[in-house]
Amino acid sequence: MLNRIQSTRDAIAGADPHFLVAAADRQASLTKPPGSLGRLEAVSIRIAAIAGSLAPALTKKRIFVVAGDHGITAEGVSAYPSAVTHQMVLNFLAGGAAINVLARHGNIEVQVVDAGVDHDFNNIPGLTNRKIVRGTRNFAIGPAMTREQAEQSIVTGIELATASKFDGVHLIGIGEMGIGNTTSASAITMALTRRPVRDVTGTGTGIDAEALERKVAAIERGMAINKPIHTEPIDVLSKVGGAEIGVMMGIVLGCAAHKIPLVADGFISTAAAALAVAMQPIVRDYVFIAHRSKEAGHQALIDYIGMQPLLDLDMRLGEGTGAALAMHVIDGAVKILCEMATFESAGVSDKNSPVEA
Amino acid sequence: MLNRIQSTRDAIAGADPHFLVAAADRQASLTKPPGSLGRLEAVSIRIAAIAGSLAPALTKKRIFVVAGDHGITAEGVSAYPSAVTHQMVLNFLAGGAAINVLARHGNIEVQVVDAGVDHDFNNIPGLTNRKIVRGTRNFAIGPAMTREQAEQSIVTGIELATASKFDGVHLIGIGEMGIGNTTSASAITMALTRRPVRDVTGTGTGIDAEALERKVAAIERGMAINKPIHTEPIDVLSKVGGAEIGVMMGIVLGCAAHKIPLVADGFISTAAAALAVAMQPIVRDYVFIAHRSKEAGHQALIDYIGMQPLLDLDMRLGEGTGAALAMHVIDGAVKILCEMATFESAGVSDKNSPVEA
Repeated sequence: MLNRIQSTRDAIAGADPHFLVAAADRQASLTKPPGSLGRLEAVSIRIAAIAGSLAPALTKKRIFVVAGDHGITAEGVSAYPSAVTHQMVLNFLAGGAAINVLARHGNIEVQVVDAGVDHDFNNIPGLTNRKIVRGTRNFAIGPAMTREQAEQSIVTGIELATASKFDGVHLIGIGEMGIGNTTSASAITMALTRRPVRDVTGTGTGIDAEALERKVAAIERGMAINKPIHTEPIDVLSKVGGAEIGVMMGIVLGCAAHKIPLVADGFISTAAAALAVAMQPIVRDYVFIAHRSKEAGHQALIDYIGMQPLLDLDMRLGEGTGAALAMHVIDGAVKILCEMATFESAGVSDKNSPVEA
Repeated sequence: MLNRIQSTRDAIAGADPHFLVAAADRQASLTKPPGSLGRLEAVSIRIAAIAGSLAPALTKKRIFVVAGDHGITAEGVSAYPSAVTHQMVLNFLAGGAAINVLARHGNIEVQVVDAGVDHDFNNIPGLTNRKIVRGTRNFAIGPAMTREQAEQSIVTGIELATASKFDGVHLIGIGEMGIGNTTSASAITMALTRRPVRDVTGTGTGIDAEALERKVAAIERGMAINKPIHTEPIDVLSKVGGAEIGVMMGIVLGCAAHKIPLVADGFISTAAAALAVAMQPIVRDYVFIAHRSKEAGHQALIDYIGMQPLLDLDMRLGEGTGAALAMHVIDGAVKILCEMATFESAGVSDKNSPVEA
């Protein structure tokens, strides 16, 4: 499995710098003051460089909602019982969750993946069964997963990205569901960014001050016992991560290898993207961060990846909800590049034209 | 005409507070941690209160792109010649401008209105001809418009909002085109917010430092000569405003009177909305600010209206481009309210459920 991960990592090449220049030139020729569409212009230029085209199309969009349970919930770190993970998976399949609504709104396909839910779904239709564990182990007392499980989760993500490439998907988003997974994401953030636990640990689904203390203590114990090696992302993933986080990390690596632009949603998704960046920094060329989550710790990951989120709407739900909204912005930015008239084609006077045309 | 404006103003009543409460209750019942969709929840609650419904639909959306020329361009305040206003109107009608692209992307109708362009369009198909002036006069040396022209522009906007009501439009955006109109918007902002000229005057379409000095000087002269009365928005509009700004102000008043939610785009559109708020503060219940423009002065108007913009993408184009993107967010927020499953309907354990359901 490690071979598959390494070969994927080695297959990742940067976006095409020639198209960075060509797309910037095209943006400058469009009927608007230079730079007046702000970050939309930068987004379109980066997508052009990823696609190697001045007319990229983002017609087919897919969001993976990857679910997994977490043994760390035994420490009383969440406001909801673990059963909510599988209940929400059923809600996703029935189309009643927030991500379903926003994906329909944005014409985005939702693929729900069971990476590690502690529940038997009995091959229910619509669910992509890639169960690696039935919930991770409690990382406050030992590693969350074995090294093999961690690698298997990453390979699973790579395979999902590869299948999407065959399906002709142009833009992929990652979102998740997993009671307890902000605790995991905080530990990952601590490991990667070397920031203190209280800077990167928040209230998740909405815990009180007492539960927050339990969460901080659980993370501190988990870090002390497991000693994740911050320069080895698979080690971090196996010791304090989760199956859904590993699958998302693999999706990010696979997207970069297949030159598919990838939208990370919120805190947990960005933690997965950060693990992929830690393994291969070139991954940054392919990643967009959808929005700035309200969850403490997200900013540390944003700084680590070195990229501004597109939206800032005080959201903190996960599931890919921010990614769904950001995809509309990204697709709009690309359509600007492809569909707008130029000063020349529209007969509009440019900045340097004589005062009366 | 003043009668029509006054009767519209007097017809404006606040959004329904009963539905503020009922929509907040419904949000709390949906399958997500309370508050986890952040500003989307607040948006949906306000739309419910405007519509007087827990299941509002924003199916039909329209953006008005209102165009007008400005005599102040004689002072050398713009990077582009005035001819660009009418050239861009033709570009809007041909579908090649940024607003056309983003409106198609968001399934939004674009209605292009000639409020004061200095060009004869010869009844070209697709253009809504409401020409009030052929360009305003140079407000650095006297009033931009007569009082009658200012009133006529507002009434025109009210009529456009009324027609939209009959057309069954659920959500209206305002955008504009008018070389020189950031100069006008800066003067309006100065008048309404009492802020110093340099705080509210920016580089518009992209002028250099020298032109910025001319722009500041022109605004200072215009304010000194015209002495707009800051408590009388029609006086401000007539002296330093523009025909397209008056039409947009009227659209805002008309939308509030007809209980249609209204999305202001950037600096100039927000100046129009601020004039409407100055006339009738209840208008605030109906206004959303699409995005934070890069143009200096927008923040002063945002503070004046007292409402945070939804997006912050460093845009400064106008035309309604920010409104088009924000409409997707607003519509998505409303669909969340209408379409999501509740904890009860989906069989998902709530925060207060027993730990194992």
